[in-house]
Amino acid sequence: MIGKKTWIIPDGFLQPKSRGEQVSHEAVCVLNLTESNAEIQLTFYFEDREPMETFISECGSKRTHHIRLDKLEDRDGNKVPRNVPYAIKVDSTVPIIVQHSRLDTSQEALALFTTMGYPIES
Amino acid sequence: MIGKKTWIIPDGFLQPKSRGEQVSHEAVCVLNLTESNAEIQLTFYFEDREPMETFISECGSKRTHHIRLDKLEDRDGNKVPRNVPYAIKVDSTVPIIVQHSRLDTSQEALALFTTMGYPIES
Amino acid sequence: MIGKKTWIIPDGFLQPKSRGEQVSHEAVCVLNLTESNAEIQLTFYFEDREPMETFISECGSKRTHHIRLDKLEDRDGNKVPRNVPYAIKVDSTVPIIVQHSRLDTSQEALALFTTMGYPIES
Amino acid sequence: MIGKKTWIIPDGFLQPKSRGEQVSHEAVCVLNLTESNAEIQLTFYFEDREPMETFISECGSKRTHHIRLDKLEDRDGNKVPRNVPYAIKVDSTVPIIVQHSRLDTSQEALALFTTMGYPIES
Repeated sequence: MIGKKTWIIPDGFLQPKSRGEQVSHEAVCVLNLTESNAEIQLTFYFEDREPMETFISECGSKRTHHIRLDKLEDRDGNKVPRNVPYAIKVDSTVPIIVQHSRLDTSQEALALFTTMGYPIES
Repeated sequence: MIGKKTWIIPDGFLQPKSRGEQVSHEAVCVLNLTESNAEIQLTFYFEDREPMETFISECGSKRTHHIRLDKLEDRDGNKVPRNVPYAIKVDSTVPIIVQHSRLDTSQEALALFTTMGYPIES
Repeated sequence: MIGKKTWIIPDGFLQPKSRGEQVSHEAVCVLNLTESNAEIQLTFYFEDREPMETFISECGSKRTHHIRLDKLEDRDGNKVPRNVPYAIKVDSTVPIIVQHSRLDTSQEALALFTTMGYPIES
Repeated sequence: MIGKKTWIIPDGFLQPKSRGEQVSHEAVCVLNLTESNAEIQLTFYFEDREPMETFISECGSKRTHHIRLDKLEDRDGNKVPRNVPYAIKVDSTVPIIVQHSRLDTSQEALALFTTMGYPIES
């Protein structure tokens, strides 16, 4: 089976400012090469408060999902806070591959970064 | 043998806008350190449609190939669609090393990102 | 236990110039998924001088810490020097996951990069 | 021993244009945590010509070296060509850790990217 069920991304941050046509955001990009639907739980860890644990997403078999973190809502309708450093744990019911990217449009010209998630052996 | 035959890149996107002299694009950058030519197949996975599976490229022995994803055509002459999130699986007949990079010139100043692909053990 | 106790980042640099509202900086972003507090030591290696070894930080259990390298001070009150290439070794008392990011605002538009640290098997 | 003796970077490119105060360049950033000096050979692979194999650098014990690829010269005084895609193999006499970064100042605002090299098991 290609991929892992748990992935870690330590550097998360939703830039509060945006200029131009594109809003500052992050995405957790998932590929599911299994034959089953992937049920995905995202946990957000902070510097000085308890984790937020009830963000749910999914990714179909043979599909990708670029999960927009600025649009996600947890079970109680809470969004991921902007302007607060966080880290992310991604848990899936089936093996997936996870990459994380940020778009920052706080100044006139946008900036991008990306990295593969850190895969956890199960 | 140095490298792997299969690599995964979850975050693919061809920015539809370009400004200035350079067109927004992505490249799958391959190095082939084997003694044989690498026949390379690229499969593109989407959020809400079937994968596109017949994109073919190659990389000679002791050569690199920076495969431009905005120029690639599949067996039927289709291009990779712009403005649509996708993920990429790269399969090679011989072990290679794969890195993926994006150039975004949608605003006045260009932005870049890169990551190694995620290697699959065979 | 998720993570490793030692991580390496070869490309460190504090850009001396800043424009706009954000100061050029780097961060070592840590996630601690263990039940214990992580005591963290950062060692900075240079091209032509002895390493600086007494930078201390921490990260609580189930917490992240985005350690700002431009604000850090060692035991003797020294800061990480700007405008000098360095590399970083991160040592923790418990397993953690480490990512490194740079923000460069030396020109009008900011630039970003990031990578996971290189984990050392213990 | 921390690190590996061989590392691969598939996406190399020296942007021919520069604006502002900083010249477009790439750096292979090395950290040597061994007790010995690292003798380093860099081989550059191209899309349509033979590899260039005689670029030599070094990194002292407990030192970093951010090797500027635009300043490097091979045994015969040749530089790495600008405006040509290449890939890099880094070979060291002792284990090192390798990260690769690009600075692009072809437009008014600079862009940055980075990734760890791909380590080869020996």
